[in-house]
Amino acid sequence: MPSPRATPRQKSLTSPHGLNPALQRMDYAVRGELVLRAEALAKRLPGDYPFSRIVYCNIGNPQSVGQKPLTFVRQVVAGLTHPELLKGDLPDDVVHRVEMFLGRSHGIGAYTESKGLPLVRERVAKALRKRDGVSADPDTIFLTNGASEGVKVLLQMIIRGPDDGVMIPIPQYPLYSATLTALQGRIVEYYLNESQGWRLDVNELSNRLRSAREQGVTVRALCVINPGNPTGQVLTRENLVEIVEFCEREGLVILADEVYQKNVYVDEKPFVSFKKVVTELGSSVELASFHSVSKGLFGECGMRGGFLEVVNMEQDALDMIYKTLSVSLCSNIVGQVAIDVMMTPPQPGEESYDLFVKETSDIYESLKRKAGKLSQALNTFKGVSCNPSEGAMYLFPRVDIPQKAVEEAARRGYASADVLYCIELLEATGICTVPGSGFGQAEGTYHFRTTFLPPEDQIDGVVTRMRDFHDKFLVKYS
Amino acid sequence: MPSPRATPRQKSLTSPHGLNPALQRMDYAVRGELVLRAEALAKRLPGDYPFSRIVYCNIGNPQSVGQKPLTFVRQVVAGLTHPELLKGDLPDDVVHRVEMFLGRSHGIGAYTESKGLPLVRERVAKALRKRDGVSADPDTIFLTNGASEGVKVLLQMIIRGPDDGVMIPIPQYPLYSATLTALQGRIVEYYLNESQGWRLDVNELSNRLRSAREQGVTVRALCVINPGNPTGQVLTRENLVEIVEFCEREGLVILADEVYQKNVYVDEKPFVSFKKVVTELGSSVELASFHSVSKGLFGECGMRGGFLEVVNMEQDALDMIYKTLSVSLCSNIVGQVAIDVMMTPPQPGEESYDLFVKETSDIYESLKRKAGKLSQALNTFKGVSCNPSEGAMYLFPRVDIPQKAVEEAARRGYASADVLYCIELLEATGICTVPGSGFGQAEGTYHFRTTFLPPEDQIDGVVTRMRDFHDKFLVKYS
Repeated sequence: MPSPRATPRQKSLTSPHGLNPALQRMDYAVRGELVLRAEALAKRLPGDYPFSRIVYCNIGNPQSVGQKPLTFVRQVVAGLTHPELLKGDLPDDVVHRVEMFLGRSHGIGAYTESKGLPLVRERVAKALRKRDGVSADPDTIFLTNGASEGVKVLLQMIIRGPDDGVMIPIPQYPLYSATLTALQGRIVEYYLNESQGWRLDVNELSNRLRSAREQGVTVRALCVINPGNPTGQVLTRENLVEIVEFCEREGLVILADEVYQKNVYVDEKPFVSFKKVVTELGSSVELASFHSVSKGLFGECGMRGGFLEVVNMEQDALDMIYKTLSVSLCSNIVGQVAIDVMMTPPQPGEESYDLFVKETSDIYESLKRKAGKLSQALNTFKGVSCNPSEGAMYLFPRVDIPQKAVEEAARRGYASADVLYCIELLEATGICTVPGSGFGQAEGTYHFRTTFLPPEDQIDGVVTRMRDFHDKFLVKYS
Repeated sequence: MPSPRATPRQKSLTSPHGLNPALQRMDYAVRGELVLRAEALAKRLPGDYPFSRIVYCNIGNPQSVGQKPLTFVRQVVAGLTHPELLKGDLPDDVVHRVEMFLGRSHGIGAYTESKGLPLVRERVAKALRKRDGVSADPDTIFLTNGASEGVKVLLQMIIRGPDDGVMIPIPQYPLYSATLTALQGRIVEYYLNESQGWRLDVNELSNRLRSAREQGVTVRALCVINPGNPTGQVLTRENLVEIVEFCEREGLVILADEVYQKNVYVDEKPFVSFKKVVTELGSSVELASFHSVSKGLFGECGMRGGFLEVVNMEQDALDMIYKTLSVSLCSNIVGQVAIDVMMTPPQPGEESYDLFVKETSDIYESLKRKAGKLSQALNTFKGVSCNPSEGAMYLFPRVDIPQKAVEEAARRGYASADVLYCIELLEATGICTVPGSGFGQAEGTYHFRTTFLPPEDQIDGVVTRMRDFHDKFLVKYS
């Protein structure tokens, strides 16, 4: 036998042949090349750059850019983590909430049921009844590590083999395309209509479905992101009814990404859940809805709390969701507790109510102002048009990129000219965004996604630096 | 168009044809039928049962059966969750640790880098250097939601298609078989030698590997659980050397589940990591090692903190792990913080040191006593033999099950006669265990897995009730 030291072997886990090919094909732009470049650049700062730090506008991560956590949720989690603290001067309703958890769980240190604590699922069901005015059943609610885990579990259940496909919007949040690629399922794109405020048109769904079926795809589900990510549109009730009827007719499961339901900035388009519409129509369409503590006004991304609610599914499907989640034992308990607090925040008359209302209103009003300010400014850039953000945390402006820049991007081997745009924006200003090509876009159009999360007093600076860069970019490639 | 209400459709997500067939085949015994029966039974208590509550011995979930959390980790997490508390009377080293995190992160509310906080990865690397006396690189460390997430990511990367297989021990922790089934990879079993204290024999590995290759399996990796789950054996350094040399020779990646590294109860077999052996041998074998805050003396299962360290892997593989984790954005931050505390606990001279040592010693000594007491007792049962637990949190006694019980189990359609045994044990005593068939076992043998986690003053009661049940079971089926 040769000594191991003498004959180092060829490595096994190497591309192109040694690694799962589906994972090699998978892209995830939100944490992709731009972010890696930004992180590398951050290590070299301050250096020969006209900025002193990176402004991360690539991801909806509010607390990383200065949003303060809500006091109530932090007090509850701290109290439950170390119940000694209840002897201190925490508000009564915090103490009450912590004691409720201590009475019906083993605290944050024990695995819970794989679906999550019954206490939390019961209270989420109650909160959903209040939100929608229709029934909700704790046994159809599953607590997850963020919304992403729930989406993955559902897609894994749905994709049975390489002919199964799922309809996803273009532009889309790349969790969907990445997960479907990893599962080796088929991606069936449908396009949102940019010139009509990123409208979701049921005729478009119908055409794309027919075309996919003609190509041999067994289309099983439709993903809808409402409010939209990266596009920010909010769907009307009428639109939801059309979509539900379409899915009912065509036998599609609805996967409703509703994590931005509290981030709606237009009074005339209140958020309406798919659950409410499905139930009120008496539809039998199978639905899964996803929610999270990472967005809304909590912005508790690091807690990784999420849940999914399923409607009209058979016990078989519920059992499979349970079994799949059980292999990871359960989601983290702090996230479960945060879901409880988000769905049942302090009520009028309780000690924390006034502070909670003030903190959430301040965040909401600020988001609304920033969304308006940034989109209005972008629309004054030459060759840029940007739909307003009716909801969520993003703007997705369209940029007319000069032909010379398109050629330069091709020369450098970039997937799209907007990659060049975003890289040069980063290197000139420190502002990190995500190229539109990471979300998908109509052929020949270019976009980028930016959050409007930086503090209000920085938004003017962001606008100035973006405009300055943009003008120079046009000159450079004219 | 017909009204949706008038024509409720056939459901789409139903077995046998509407759901992912791989997930249908997947089993996960630790949260399987016995647990579901126990939970249903718990809801009927107190009733016509000779016990008032369920004793959950099915899962290594220490805090659910009374283990107290360690004070230091809870104080750090609470302080970081709600930094106002730092004004109170927390120990200096707690304040110092929290301030370190506040200075180099955005607290627990922001997504971190997908690999986890650089601060934590640097400190884990330092702690690993101290543990093993060899180098460690923060860039090869990935923080995950528990160890399970890391295992899944590695297996997903390794399995490229239906001919790829991974060697797993029998008996094994079913995370491995479940994940490989879901990925549609091949499971290549190797048997631990029960009559020699669950020894891992490299000749057995060699024979099983050859046989799998003859059947067309491309064997890519070897999973080793050390200390063993459910079997509790601890591998010697000599054994690790043999295994590493075998994997080097055969081109296999090593997946080392080392989550029980602090749960070793025999002085003559200290835990030795695969990392240490691979490095000291100068081997080029590719290795991933998994660790968790759920086990050891922390038992913080609900925090879902874990990490993996990879050794000798190419940048391609590191990039794929990063990309796969990035689709879930990052692991939860409380889990990341708990990993930091576990790997770098209070040091001599620091304010929390004495309490930390007392709390961890008490837990350790108690686990050691309970392991001995329960295994000695089981060995006095008629027809039961049980290897001692050298490590981990489990015993895996072998039970001679009477032929009539075997026939009854077959009549009821159970996978194995030990399912009947465990169900009847549960219904007679309230003690919830897991049938050996859920972990795999030699043909014609029967086992069950039980933890030894219940409080010491309950262990005698557990033994008495188990013995009483066992004797009656033998009579019933004699």
